[in-house]
Amino acid sequence: MLVDGQHFRTIWPTDDGVFEIIDQTKLPFSFEVVRLETAVEAAHAIFDMLVRGAPLIGATAAYGMALAMREDASDDNLSHAYTNLLAARPTAVNLRWAVDEMRALLDPLDPGQRATAAFARAADICDEDAAQCSAIGDHGLELILGAYEKCGKSRPVNILTHCNAGWLATVDWGTATAPIYKAHEKGIPVHVWVDETRPRNQGASLTAWELNQHGVDHTVIVDNAGGHLMQKGQVDLCIVGTDRTTRTGDVCNKIGTYLKALAAADNSVPFYVALPGTTIDWELKHGKDIPIEERAAEEVTEMTGRTRAGNVETMRIVSDGSKAANPAFDVTPAGLVSALITERGIAMANEEALSSLYPEKAKY
Amino acid sequence: MLVDGQHFRTIWPTDDGVFEIIDQTKLPFSFEVVRLETAVEAAHAIFDMLVRGAPLIGATAAYGMALAMREDASDDNLSHAYTNLLAARPTAVNLRWAVDEMRALLDPLDPGQRATAAFARAADICDEDAAQCSAIGDHGLELILGAYEKCGKSRPVNILTHCNAGWLATVDWGTATAPIYKAHEKGIPVHVWVDETRPRNQGASLTAWELNQHGVDHTVIVDNAGGHLMQKGQVDLCIVGTDRTTRTGDVCNKIGTYLKALAAADNSVPFYVALPGTTIDWELKHGKDIPIEERAAEEVTEMTGRTRAGNVETMRIVSDGSKAANPAFDVTPAGLVSALITERGIAMANEEALSSLYPEKAKY
Repeated sequence: MLVDGQHFRTIWPTDDGVFEIIDQTKLPFSFEVVRLETAVEAAHAIFDMLVRGAPLIGATAAYGMALAMREDASDDNLSHAYTNLLAARPTAVNLRWAVDEMRALLDPLDPGQRATAAFARAADICDEDAAQCSAIGDHGLELILGAYEKCGKSRPVNILTHCNAGWLATVDWGTATAPIYKAHEKGIPVHVWVDETRPRNQGASLTAWELNQHGVDHTVIVDNAGGHLMQKGQVDLCIVGTDRTTRTGDVCNKIGTYLKALAAADNSVPFYVALPGTTIDWELKHGKDIPIEERAAEEVTEMTGRTRAGNVETMRIVSDGSKAANPAFDVTPAGLVSALITERGIAMANEEALSSLYPEKAKY
Repeated sequence: MLVDGQHFRTIWPTDDGVFEIIDQTKLPFSFEVVRLETAVEAAHAIFDMLVRGAPLIGATAAYGMALAMREDASDDNLSHAYTNLLAARPTAVNLRWAVDEMRALLDPLDPGQRATAAFARAADICDEDAAQCSAIGDHGLELILGAYEKCGKSRPVNILTHCNAGWLATVDWGTATAPIYKAHEKGIPVHVWVDETRPRNQGASLTAWELNQHGVDHTVIVDNAGGHLMQKGQVDLCIVGTDRTTRTGDVCNKIGTYLKALAAADNSVPFYVALPGTTIDWELKHGKDIPIEERAAEEVTEMTGRTRAGNVETMRIVSDGSKAANPAFDVTPAGLVSALITERGIAMANEEALSSLYPEKAKY
């Protein structure tokens, strides 16, 4: 999408055979492109969260494998790069998928062919992800168009989103943001309520930044405010992303998603979840069985921002001596989800509907 | 309550005829007592929010009137002090009540009697507030005891609260915290989940501070986390305060309260609201008619904390160029409120129950 008027993806190859990313740890206060020349640098970019978001982590790992083949295309180095990249964020499902995919491609090839094949496959993985997000956007666009028609095209469509399921988390378009960008491109007026999304503030720092750069009207709110806005009729629909969805449509997403889904149901506001089919966990029936990561207390007790003197600093914001808990995700039961927006179309949040969209995965 | 092992109220007279307060703008990073010697200083303490919370603002204004009489007990100065103190925070209902009360007392008196009478009445106003909060605590204690018995006294009672309806907002005890302090004094083990309460973070900075000082076990969480904790059975009950409650039991309180009430209802967790009868608006039937204050966007886009170098600073935390909205309160419909805890006892959140507790106010 656009940054300062210029089109960017989150990851791209250079003319001289390496690749570049946006250092997302520097956002929103500074936009910095980082050149990655070795597999070790790619692993560090993943580990240090210069890149984040499942699809982008996968794409970075794929290019990391390609860089490894450029450095040394031996079997040993292929195995070594696979292990190192996988260790950078062991719980990331897309990371494992990407390195498995690359190893399966490269293993049978002659070392002399590996680098070229690896770069080509990494580029394909990026293109496939962008196409998938674009398809999510096309399907979700219909829902925004419906809301626009419902209000007689008299005003912008108000969309609430939580966290960053934006293009910064993918290669391009994003998941939850893809329908928004598609609507914007079609000239449908949209206004986005951006939940700041404590504790890591991905909404206020990343979603707000990318919408602002692309020229989409938006307003940042604290996570407490969305329910009130829905009561006052100021939200037409919600669209969020998901880290993992069960085959019955229970949605695991960033902490606080469940509260917005409750408010949406209480105020008859449609609550949509945008996702690529790859994030559906077909093995899992009930959302309550999803283990919830407990992250560091410092994410709650400290906050990073830019001081008035212009320095980016980290401050303590909680009373000394108080402990903090930090569950990172919650589960929204399928009953609170109006529909799932996938790359194959829109599905009700239940096993039957998901199974019809993904018959090759269905359990019955 | 206790600060560093010593008992404090939020406001107290000195031996030499003036009064002192805690500078709450310095909390939680520094505990500073401020001596107020003139009515102008008292008005500034209110205006600059060194004191906050309706009951404490009222008490400060009452002492401010007393200081005015100490300086110059003339009719002119009585009128002047009344106007100045009222202007310090014109929307504070308790402020108006307190200065009206003081003026009605002082007006008919001979100037020579006014200062003594004013200090005595200000002290009474403080004692009455503390007694009222203590009574709220005694009634609410029964609910905590019930929860403790329900779990077979096998573990601490987990209580979630939002914002600061603590002793810092009153003269002593607090409203939502009063039952918690009473339980703590009775030896009932309690653990409090403290919502940080964005955007002004009164939970993380004030509620956490006062619970920590008093030795009550607690954990700070982001506002997004409470619903998940309720899903996981980690909350036995919620207790919050209120700024204004309609005669039908709709509760206006700090933004985000409504989301917690929804989650409590969805998980069969009792949701209690603690309030002095003075905050019931008998003229108002429907909570949706309560105007909601929209506060400065900077409260959302900026955050104050202590840097690693030890300085208290204000930082920008939202992407540049993004606007922010800041509705300060929301309304929780009576149907989501399990009961109201008042100084006269516990009432269901409906007009009939409230009217039986306050027959002198009842509309029918």
